[in-house]
Amino acid sequence: MKLHEAPSPNARRVHVFMAEKGVELERVAVDIRAGENIQNDYLAKNPAGRVPVLELDDGSFLSESVAICRYLEGLNPDPNLFGATPLEAATIEMWGRRAEINFMSNVAGAFRNITGFFKDRETPVKEWGEVCAEVAPKTLTMFDEQLDQTEYLAGAQFSIADITLGIALDFAEMVKVVTIPDLTNLNRWRAQIAERPSWGAS
Amino acid sequence: MKLHEAPSPNARRVHVFMAEKGVELERVAVDIRAGENIQNDYLAKNPAGRVPVLELDDGSFLSESVAICRYLEGLNPDPNLFGATPLEAATIEMWGRRAEINFMSNVAGAFRNITGFFKDRETPVKEWGEVCAEVAPKTLTMFDEQLDQTEYLAGAQFSIADITLGIALDFAEMVKVVTIPDLTNLNRWRAQIAERPSWGAS
Repeated sequence: MKLHEAPSPNARRVHVFMAEKGVELERVAVDIRAGENIQNDYLAKNPAGRVPVLELDDGSFLSESVAICRYLEGLNPDPNLFGATPLEAATIEMWGRRAEINFMSNVAGAFRNITGFFKDRETPVKEWGEVCAEVAPKTLTMFDEQLDQTEYLAGAQFSIADITLGIALDFAEMVKVVTIPDLTNLNRWRAQIAERPSWGAS
Repeated sequence: MKLHEAPSPNARRVHVFMAEKGVELERVAVDIRAGENIQNDYLAKNPAGRVPVLELDDGSFLSESVAICRYLEGLNPDPNLFGATPLEAATIEMWGRRAEINFMSNVAGAFRNITGFFKDRETPVKEWGEVCAEVAPKTLTMFDEQLDQTEYLAGAQFSIADITLGIALDFAEMVKVVTIPDLTNLNRWRAQIAERPSWGAS
């Protein structure tokens, strides 16, 4: 299998996931700044034009980073990062979606609309970016309150939900469009996941 | 178990899913127009303030409609709507996410920002809503091309990905902020899923 990728929070999500599993894959760089991902050759791999994409050994392609992680989980069940019981799986899905919908999508909205990073291929609306930048930090209270009760987002077990929120926070800091508030439990948890050997995976 | 809910595409996603499984749940109405979902009583159930929420028999709560569906799948595995093998599960996840990220989120962005439906609790930006309304229909080509090759989005099997795209299309038509293009394979598939007994579930 080969992972077609470009530096991005979604690629990093897969890298951390792979490191947790001890999985290694051949990598193929995609130049998204030059728009390689919106050319026909790439669109044949992923019609949504996004990275990363996993090329399977039969020549078919799987995209969407969470779908790629779920496939890798199916092939390498231990340690499980998507939950084992129905309630674990659902709780991890809930927190992963909250991390994406409430925080990560607002960070992405702020970044893309304030900086115009992809203005050659989409219409940025600065005012919307500013709304996203204002909303994103407020959504973190919910995670901080949960982390007052539990070690990781979905309970006692580190999961894909922690990876999603963690990489979104790191990305928000890197691109500097969103101010991360100082929240005790969130800080404790960030320090804890940053110590995992997987966290520096690239 | 009890489902706390309000009329919405996400509630409908759970209703159709339940009907496919033959699952019935007690329902509790939440008045989102009056802002019941952003009052403290409700926020104790779901700090994200969204509907639906599944109340479990032990008094705990599970939110995010896809997480609720995944939990119901765990309790009632047949017929599976999230896939059985690693590749099926990943392919269904990929198409479900494409339906959400590429189409459904643009429909929601158009609806909320053009109509200002939630302007008592969020800042609508009309110009952003218009960008979303322009982008949403273009994303449907990808689904139409897939449906030229396969009966359902993720292959030969009806899945949660079909439910997600189908309810998003129905919602887009109902709120009239997005024009649905006339696409042969998408039309064939919509007619086919509309004939399923589950599709009228409410």
